[in-house]
Amino acid sequence: MKLFKKTEKEINKYQKAFDELLMVLGKERVLSAIEDRICYSFDATKQKALPDIVVRPGSTTDVSNTLRIANKYEVPIYARGAGSGLTGGAVPLMGGIVFDLKNMDKIIEIRPDDFTATVEPGVVTKQLQDEVAKFDLFYPPDPSSAAFSTIGGNVAECAGGITGLKYGVTRDYILALEIVLPDGSVIKTGGRKLRGVVGYDLTRLFTGSEGTLGIFTKITVKLIPKPEKIRTLAAYFRDRDDAIDAADQIIDNNILPRTLEFLDYMTINAVRSYSGTDIDEDVKALLLVDIDGTDESISYEMPIIENACKGSGAFKTKISETGKERDAIWADRRSISPALYNIAPHKINEDICVPRSKIKEALQRIDRINDQQTIYIANFGHIGDGNIHVNIMYNNDPGQEELAERIVNRVMKEVVALGGSISGEHGIGNKKSQFMEFEIPPREYDIMKRFKNYFDPKGIMNPGKMFIR
Amino acid sequence: MKLFKKTEKEINKYQKAFDELLMVLGKERVLSAIEDRICYSFDATKQKALPDIVVRPGSTTDVSNTLRIANKYEVPIYARGAGSGLTGGAVPLMGGIVFDLKNMDKIIEIRPDDFTATVEPGVVTKQLQDEVAKFDLFYPPDPSSAAFSTIGGNVAECAGGITGLKYGVTRDYILALEIVLPDGSVIKTGGRKLRGVVGYDLTRLFTGSEGTLGIFTKITVKLIPKPEKIRTLAAYFRDRDDAIDAADQIIDNNILPRTLEFLDYMTINAVRSYSGTDIDEDVKALLLVDIDGTDESISYEMPIIENACKGSGAFKTKISETGKERDAIWADRRSISPALYNIAPHKINEDICVPRSKIKEALQRIDRINDQQTIYIANFGHIGDGNIHVNIMYNNDPGQEELAERIVNRVMKEVVALGGSISGEHGIGNKKSQFMEFEIPPREYDIMKRFKNYFDPKGIMNPGKMFIR
Repeated sequence: MKLFKKTEKEINKYQKAFDELLMVLGKERVLSAIEDRICYSFDATKQKALPDIVVRPGSTTDVSNTLRIANKYEVPIYARGAGSGLTGGAVPLMGGIVFDLKNMDKIIEIRPDDFTATVEPGVVTKQLQDEVAKFDLFYPPDPSSAAFSTIGGNVAECAGGITGLKYGVTRDYILALEIVLPDGSVIKTGGRKLRGVVGYDLTRLFTGSEGTLGIFTKITVKLIPKPEKIRTLAAYFRDRDDAIDAADQIIDNNILPRTLEFLDYMTINAVRSYSGTDIDEDVKALLLVDIDGTDESISYEMPIIENACKGSGAFKTKISETGKERDAIWADRRSISPALYNIAPHKINEDICVPRSKIKEALQRIDRINDQQTIYIANFGHIGDGNIHVNIMYNNDPGQEELAERIVNRVMKEVVALGGSISGEHGIGNKKSQFMEFEIPPREYDIMKRFKNYFDPKGIMNPGKMFIR
Repeated sequence: MKLFKKTEKEINKYQKAFDELLMVLGKERVLSAIEDRICYSFDATKQKALPDIVVRPGSTTDVSNTLRIANKYEVPIYARGAGSGLTGGAVPLMGGIVFDLKNMDKIIEIRPDDFTATVEPGVVTKQLQDEVAKFDLFYPPDPSSAAFSTIGGNVAECAGGITGLKYGVTRDYILALEIVLPDGSVIKTGGRKLRGVVGYDLTRLFTGSEGTLGIFTKITVKLIPKPEKIRTLAAYFRDRDDAIDAADQIIDNNILPRTLEFLDYMTINAVRSYSGTDIDEDVKALLLVDIDGTDESISYEMPIIENACKGSGAFKTKISETGKERDAIWADRRSISPALYNIAPHKINEDICVPRSKIKEALQRIDRINDQQTIYIANFGHIGDGNIHVNIMYNNDPGQEELAERIVNRVMKEVVALGGSISGEHGIGNKKSQFMEFEIPPREYDIMKRFKNYFDPKGIMNPGKMFIR
């Protein structure tokens, strides 16, 4: 457990902040017992750092008061939704306040006639999806964490997910935000209408800002009609490049699948040994394809997709006829995360994104970087978007962690050299800030820093190793 | 013709700027003859103001040099694409340089394998659409001006158009920008990949910034597969509210038409007297609906749409069987703009956007504002998005212009009261800046002003009555 060393002056200020928070928000909302602090000392990155204070606001006023007080006493503050972030944004590396927004979990309004919903940040994304589905509506962004991650966290990270190729990502669905700025003032951006071009686009500046500029207290999303049906195809390949070609072929046929997922050999092996799935030993790559629409559109598209896969070398395909069969096919994809820990106890989970035409080349370069095979690398992800999760697995042997980190560093450089991005959907947080300079030139970085300094002159919002320092 | 009065000091500085521009860019690119200046003294708003200098850059370097020199001598500069803007952004209200980007019109690269195209700002939007169509790809944003407006102007205004309900607007298709900042420095935002969440979203901050923050020199757009077929339905109503109900019904059936356009009685009358179309005298409202997809999906959707229209009171519907029939149906929509001038010689063209459920109420309020009927108001537009063009027509009688302006002012207030926006797609420019405060609260406006001041401390970019002063 990391404990950030504070000076006496800091300890004094933190104490005053705690006293004032307690007075203003009450003891239900402000915690400092060690058992509470431990509960908020980690996230999905498995980093650990103990916060000094935990605040659990229940309203915009609570959020405003907390930020005002944190700002007054210069106490670092880390917004936290479900703590499922993969880049460490919720880990209090420099101590201070962890700001748990999960209690602000009201669905304020669903307006089926306007295709909008307005929610508080602590609403779990799956819950939003389920509630709007009752009106035959669809909130498309679907990160793998949707069953537990919060919409506030999704907006903060500009979450992607498996539906991006056809439907876009979180930023494409955010119409309006209520935001509390670090000084406690409340602003509103955008509006509950489908179009608006009045002034600069503050909504999208804050989307993806990773808790470094302000805290969302209300989020209005755009909805679309829910597709009637979904059907799934799994295609099995003996060669990785064949699977990549098949993905290209599907898209070349002018079909945008709802989901187009790729699993490589190492990933499949991990899944097989974890879940006992019936994927044959000689399968070197797997494509999972969801298409959605009407019976008519699915009947039209599915044979084209199947032919594209077979024509590119799939030796077997499987099409779901029932929901149960669909679930069985997807179970393999869902088990990847736990399965990978069967390979090695430690995982560095990268999510590079390259132009689709560079995927083969990117994977070849990753192979070459790891040519000594002393580290296992499992690749899977949203191949239609070029967004591949590169999982670098290592064990506790001496030197393995350092080797893994060297490999990550080289992968990042290669990705940027290919015109790609060091993060397609997980964000930067404290885990990738050292790679920012590979992708963002100094002048552009300086602009971001100015924005950060303007909104947060004392640097209290997610400080430490966050991407904007 | 308005001529901005300059001080002697300013005249002196402008002369120096002209001399330096001439030296650096050459006389092909720097014009000051009165006949050239007159050609650049107006735009689609019919405002007129004479620039002192016209610069026609051919490269990013030219753009950089021009901005550097304009900045050095504090000469105002107005980016201009096709001059088809409807809010006056290209009119040099304070004199200075009109910056004509139409010569930078190269399609640099189309990458069908990656679904991207990179172009210079002067490319006409329709040309981009046509070029990518050769690869069976589709650039969806389709403002009515697409046949002549430039992609640079479209990005600067975040243009909308008739395909927004199904496909979104310009901002949803911009992946990367090369931007020259007012000091002449060149920055690059985003990248040629479908996803990226690294740092703050500068791409979308600049999209829709109306030439007030920088000049785009390269634009990378996202493409999608081109729908195979389009078919059109026209539905004729005796009651305006019935047409609005029909639009709702179509969408309630979980169908997002490619286009869903509404024309009111006044608009239809104007079109009838202009083009001699065969629309019956008793038609009070018209819906034009495009659906796209495969033969299968169109066969499925079209009867649902026709039933929705008939069920909501359409007394006649017409479905295109051929491209020629489609063109005939759409000719009415295309003739609106010239036709309206048959009603009265002057037009104030607003483009309000309200939540879809508020459209009826918005139109009723506009009726009430104009209850004396001394001014003609024609309403048409993208009803699926709630984006209605409110055209306030007036003649040269004494007091008419002032009355029209009072009506606009009241319409704007009502729109904001209904949770709407004073502009869905045309932008603010110099025509709507006086209404900004209705929609944007002071704190939010102050943030925008800070951004403006950071990028353009001397205030040379589109100064005057632009939305950010």
